[in-house]
Amino acid sequence: MRTLSVALSDRSYDIHIGPNLLDRVQLITDRLPTAQAAVVSNTIVAPLYLARVTESLRAAGIRVTEIVLPDGESHKNWETLNTIFDGLLANRCDRSTTIVALGGGVIGDLAGFAAATYQRGVPFIQIPTTLLAQVDSSVGGKTGINHPRGKNMIGAFWQPKVVLAGTDTLATLPDRELSAGLAEVIKYGLIRDLPFLEWIEANLDRLMARDADALAYAIERSCANKAEVVAGDERETAKDNGRALLNLGHTFGHAIETGIGYGEWLHGEAVAAGMVMAAELSNRLGWLNRADVERVCSVLARARLPVVGASLGPDRYLDLMGHDKKVIAGRLRLVLLKRLGEATTWADAPPGEIRAAIDACCA
Amino acid sequence: MRTLSVALSDRSYDIHIGPNLLDRVQLITDRLPTAQAAVVSNTIVAPLYLARVTESLRAAGIRVTEIVLPDGESHKNWETLNTIFDGLLANRCDRSTTIVALGGGVIGDLAGFAAATYQRGVPFIQIPTTLLAQVDSSVGGKTGINHPRGKNMIGAFWQPKVVLAGTDTLATLPDRELSAGLAEVIKYGLIRDLPFLEWIEANLDRLMARDADALAYAIERSCANKAEVVAGDERETAKDNGRALLNLGHTFGHAIETGIGYGEWLHGEAVAAGMVMAAELSNRLGWLNRADVERVCSVLARARLPVVGASLGPDRYLDLMGHDKKVIAGRLRLVLLKRLGEATTWADAPPGEIRAAIDACCA
Repeated sequence: MRTLSVALSDRSYDIHIGPNLLDRVQLITDRLPTAQAAVVSNTIVAPLYLARVTESLRAAGIRVTEIVLPDGESHKNWETLNTIFDGLLANRCDRSTTIVALGGGVIGDLAGFAAATYQRGVPFIQIPTTLLAQVDSSVGGKTGINHPRGKNMIGAFWQPKVVLAGTDTLATLPDRELSAGLAEVIKYGLIRDLPFLEWIEANLDRLMARDADALAYAIERSCANKAEVVAGDERETAKDNGRALLNLGHTFGHAIETGIGYGEWLHGEAVAAGMVMAAELSNRLGWLNRADVERVCSVLARARLPVVGASLGPDRYLDLMGHDKKVIAGRLRLVLLKRLGEATTWADAPPGEIRAAIDACCA
Repeated sequence: MRTLSVALSDRSYDIHIGPNLLDRVQLITDRLPTAQAAVVSNTIVAPLYLARVTESLRAAGIRVTEIVLPDGESHKNWETLNTIFDGLLANRCDRSTTIVALGGGVIGDLAGFAAATYQRGVPFIQIPTTLLAQVDSSVGGKTGINHPRGKNMIGAFWQPKVVLAGTDTLATLPDRELSAGLAEVIKYGLIRDLPFLEWIEANLDRLMARDADALAYAIERSCANKAEVVAGDERETAKDNGRALLNLGHTFGHAIETGIGYGEWLHGEAVAAGMVMAAELSNRLGWLNRADVERVCSVLARARLPVVGASLGPDRYLDLMGHDKKVIAGRLRLVLLKRLGEATTWADAPPGEIRAAIDACCA
């Protein structure tokens, strides 16, 4: 088991990475203020792993409430959130109850937002079971739900007490979701870690073959990168180049997700296509050369990720991007690449170039 | 104008109290990070004061979005909250937009929770227009909405940047709401400030006649008491005798509000009846004598507040109180009075005595 620490003063916490963490119940019980927990999962993950978690918790004397939600980004909304509140209240969970998220990014976002707002805040633990959740959603405390007018528009920052990233749970992950997770892994290389990008390029076949050691290393290095960024800018308030850099490809990607309807494209897929658009625009600004853009496309394509965006048309993209949280005082701030391994926030991209980059990257 | 400071390290803020604060727009504009604000009000308050606020903001160069909600505790729910989100998104309010609550406690709770969760948190300013909101809801950062199974079950702690308690807005307050506010004023005397209780008893006729100086003094002293308590226990995590003391009468009162249906009883009215139950139970535990209990009833009755609870029956009360946030690990913690001017949290009241106290205080 590898352990990383996320340094956030009194909200600091550990991320444990390795096989069979679901059986190491003490990693959870050590963090519970009282012997009460509510495990939130979904209809896909619950049959695979829920009993393993709840039975070991109960054997340790914990009163456990189980809440099973429908699966998918299309359910990351108020109705599903309310299902969690209903379950907590029906089981008389009080505000010392720890909410445990067992599932992918959607479960983490929903359960985390429920933890942030149930009785004005209860403790929270993450057990991410997808690669994307392990390398991204479970680090940094972002929680929330979607609004019909925009993704993640309603939410809170709420840090977990501990994160258990069990590599064995990746064995049951569909291929498409493995690829979606790799999009975020590749992102860390692109924005701030060129040696890691080179390692990914050299080891992509092992990652695609689910080599346990390669995956554990990729998770650890991704989480370490994210933890460093988050520690420097917990609430994404830095004007430039703080936590916002983690959003490479996300503003374009959110437009795809919102424009097509949540759930059609996986988040990681939309981010992949969005990173290509960001690379294309970076090229048009004179920062990346054509070979760099091709290199971005190539590593994403090898991970079986889309490198061509949804055909919404530039107008619709720009309209949807105008709702993005990265808009500050009316100006669209994008994350672009100064070079491979170094991202920057940029509010001065000419709208014509943004349109041209979108056009160039859509079918 | 009197100004109090609430000391919460980097979340500290000022409360200004006095006449005509709505016209002193600089008290607001000084706190805006960008020239964008969204003023949230309701159908009762908006015709009286909304234009005065928004016109002066616009004259100062601020882009203002107006959001007007239906009035009343029965609307303190997800649907109404979503009306705020819809208004913010439709007007493309970004996360530098400051949300301004203009209204009573319900507006403060709704707008504050919207501020805590819109794009994971935006700045917030309170302009409370009712006595209850001025002395209670606007201090301390509690925000939230009701759930069919319990009051204030969903929410967050979110501190305002500044509070403007304008005493002239109390001129338009219905008598019943003035009384409801006085319930919380009296509460501060009961829980921690016997000299203030004595001042209230001596000046209750002036308060009921809306004497401006008497009201300003009562607001200031109430806010000062609350600010001291909150500064010592911002998130109500103290095991004993911290912020929880502010909930005198609230656990019983919430049972009335939930049991009868939100909106029938005003919050302050339910708290008044709840404080009588707490005093009665304190007497049964040997802490207050009968004359003390009568004194509590007398000052509340002089403020035209109910001193007899809703006839739900002790079983229903206890069931509803079991959902209360003051339940920790299955034990009901009540706020009771050791003596007039000194409250304590208490988890050891025998259930039989709780039932007897409820019985004694219901019609």
